[in-house]
Amino acid sequence: MSIDPARRASELLDLVRGTVPLTHCITNSVVTNFTANAVLAVGATPAMVDLVGEAGMFAGVAGGLLVNLGTPTPEQREAAREAVAGANAAGTPWVLDPVAIGALPIRTALAHELVALRPAAVRGNASEMLALAGTGGGGRGVDAADETDAAAGPAAELARRSRAVVAVSGAVDLITDGERVARVANGDALLTKVTGGGCALGAVMAAFLAADAGTAEPDAFLAIVCASLVYEVAAEFAADGAAGPGSFGVRFLDALASADGDEVVARARVEVAAFDGAAA
Amino acid sequence: MSIDPARRASELLDLVRGTVPLTHCITNSVVTNFTANAVLAVGATPAMVDLVGEAGMFAGVAGGLLVNLGTPTPEQREAAREAVAGANAAGTPWVLDPVAIGALPIRTALAHELVALRPAAVRGNASEMLALAGTGGGGRGVDAADETDAAAGPAAELARRSRAVVAVSGAVDLITDGERVARVANGDALLTKVTGGGCALGAVMAAFLAADAGTAEPDAFLAIVCASLVYEVAAEFAADGAAGPGSFGVRFLDALASADGDEVVARARVEVAAFDGAAA
Amino acid sequence: MSIDPARRASELLDLVRGTVPLTHCITNSVVTNFTANAVLAVGATPAMVDLVGEAGMFAGVAGGLLVNLGTPTPEQREAAREAVAGANAAGTPWVLDPVAIGALPIRTALAHELVALRPAAVRGNASEMLALAGTGGGGRGVDAADETDAAAGPAAELARRSRAVVAVSGAVDLITDGERVARVANGDALLTKVTGGGCALGAVMAAFLAADAGTAEPDAFLAIVCASLVYEVAAEFAADGAAGPGSFGVRFLDALASADGDEVVARARVEVAAFDGAAA
Repeated sequence: MSIDPARRASELLDLVRGTVPLTHCITNSVVTNFTANAVLAVGATPAMVDLVGEAGMFAGVAGGLLVNLGTPTPEQREAAREAVAGANAAGTPWVLDPVAIGALPIRTALAHELVALRPAAVRGNASEMLALAGTGGGGRGVDAADETDAAAGPAAELARRSRAVVAVSGAVDLITDGERVARVANGDALLTKVTGGGCALGAVMAAFLAADAGTAEPDAFLAIVCASLVYEVAAEFAADGAAGPGSFGVRFLDALASADGDEVVARARVEVAAFDGAAA
Repeated sequence: MSIDPARRASELLDLVRGTVPLTHCITNSVVTNFTANAVLAVGATPAMVDLVGEAGMFAGVAGGLLVNLGTPTPEQREAAREAVAGANAAGTPWVLDPVAIGALPIRTALAHELVALRPAAVRGNASEMLALAGTGGGGRGVDAADETDAAAGPAAELARRSRAVVAVSGAVDLITDGERVARVANGDALLTKVTGGGCALGAVMAAFLAADAGTAEPDAFLAIVCASLVYEVAAEFAADGAAGPGSFGVRFLDALASADGDEVVARARVEVAAFDGAAA
Repeated sequence: MSIDPARRASELLDLVRGTVPLTHCITNSVVTNFTANAVLAVGATPAMVDLVGEAGMFAGVAGGLLVNLGTPTPEQREAAREAVAGANAAGTPWVLDPVAIGALPIRTALAHELVALRPAAVRGNASEMLALAGTGGGGRGVDAADETDAAAGPAAELARRSRAVVAVSGAVDLITDGERVARVANGDALLTKVTGGGCALGAVMAAFLAADAGTAEPDAFLAIVCASLVYEVAAEFAADGAAGPGSFGVRFLDALASADGDEVVARARVEVAAFDGAAA
């Protein structure tokens, strides 16, 4: 790769802070507060507009949109469809997070419907990505590292089919657009002990996509890698000195707010390569 | 003014803690938790009752009510109408917080409907207050200090028309009943980096209105000024030593719970004057 | 009692951490985040599935279920009924938390409907338990210690009638299955200043019931006593050094995550006796 993803992460972080993208989040009731605080901390402006009759027009003026299916009530399902239509009409990049799909029928059907509507990115854990790719039945998850590697092939296939960047969260985050594949080895296990630790990343990805979309050479794949890098490096700073998941969550918001591009560059453990179906 | 607002804030804070007003909150899904914790911290009892069939009767027995339009689902919209009717029938003072009105049609229409039903107070940022006054189209906001001053005239006009106290949050909070105008210069910018930092103030205002309503000479204008003073002084204590928005939010709840009337008096930066349309 | 409840608490805590029970929570919008974080902290996996069409099947695969009636929207009411049916069909133990029943008609009717469907446990404060037992009209609550003792007789009666373990939270927690009665004197008043402090206990009880159900001699009464012990001892650790309710809430999650069985045994202040209707 000619572009250093860590340096690009530093640039995009500055750009998020400089442009303060309006980040529209339709997300689950468990994590709304943490998600909004994470978006504020990274430097963007969150707005949780999930009403039928408002979500569509709002997605059209937002810089980026997250659609998270964690608690999709009937009202929110309609609002999500409306928001996706509004985003697509306006060219607003959007992220799909198909939480807990696989066995649960309502969200699974909705995720398959939405992934066909050209999200810029799809994010989830390995079992969710396998379910979306049609190669897994969902589940509670096995060892995360194994899962991420097992998901590489189906993730690339899903990326090519949906033309979305696919991000698989795990001990190592795997991100692919079907042509390229990145592995981000930063992060801390405490992030999995804070509810919304994954969901809020989807919103931060939407903020980074918004900032990236305004650049001369937007590259959604790199923007997603950059969002993951900033997020996971902040988790490392937060874990250092945390006494448990409660203090980690607080320190994580502080760390996102004080994240420094040079520190991201210094700490980054990221590899980007051409996708090799045989190796993956 | 014959009454020192800072001394009155100290008295009302004691009264809130002594009478523990039942504070009924119909609020948005992003900030319910933070709002309930802020109400508990200041010394009142929160209750988030937003069901059709329960909200009306509950507003009748509550000491104060907040109606916040941040995520007004269809069920919550009906519950809000029911609660306002119940509050008005029982003489329960209530606060309207028309979050993000202006461009978003459902909440904007509901805010205009509700403001005609005699809230004791209306709270929001300058763009929201301008939209409610009919002199602005809403928006993401410009520099907050400028906004507050620009909103003074429309806010006083709105106050006279609606007979509600109008509170405009910003770097300086402006509060007016159309005859008097107060400016509270306390606070900290970190409060804008915690989601619900403004919304929870609406609930604290409802608690202060409840305590004030039981006094010999209730004065809703002063009660709103007092709530703002206690809240913004707590923000200053919280900011001192905070490492970012995460730790600030935690420290803010601690500071509200330990707020001391004498400290409020010592720190208060508040001016109250007769409203002068020309100067404003 | 031949079984030492504190030693059993230590064993069940290990078992929760070893088996990581999937804990299905249908709970109110104010406390979803705190509840999920508490369940994660104690070592289980939370899942907030409250959709009609998903809740029933999910309750059938979960290890334990909480149904909390704090903000029961129409959708959530149907989902709760579906979840209870699914839990009962699969033998999943479930906890009912009838928040604020008594005067509020919708949740009161639903609580009476659900308590007849064989919850493994019912949890609430004294006024809620009296309302469910049919001997009180609900209310804001008087002195908690008095209330707990006053509720002992009705709680035992309710336990015998519903065949559920009944847990009455207060300064001293009272737990009874109608034959036995336990009093847990651990805890800290700060827990009442954090919204969700009681609600999250219901979810932790569901996790402990799930772990207990897999043992050779399951005893739901003891499992509920154990959950209370672990939870209330964690509150004591959290209070030690807390600067107020904000820092207490953070420290509480840390304390749950680091709770140690030996410390629970050392700190436990619990008495278990045969229920004596005359004495109670």
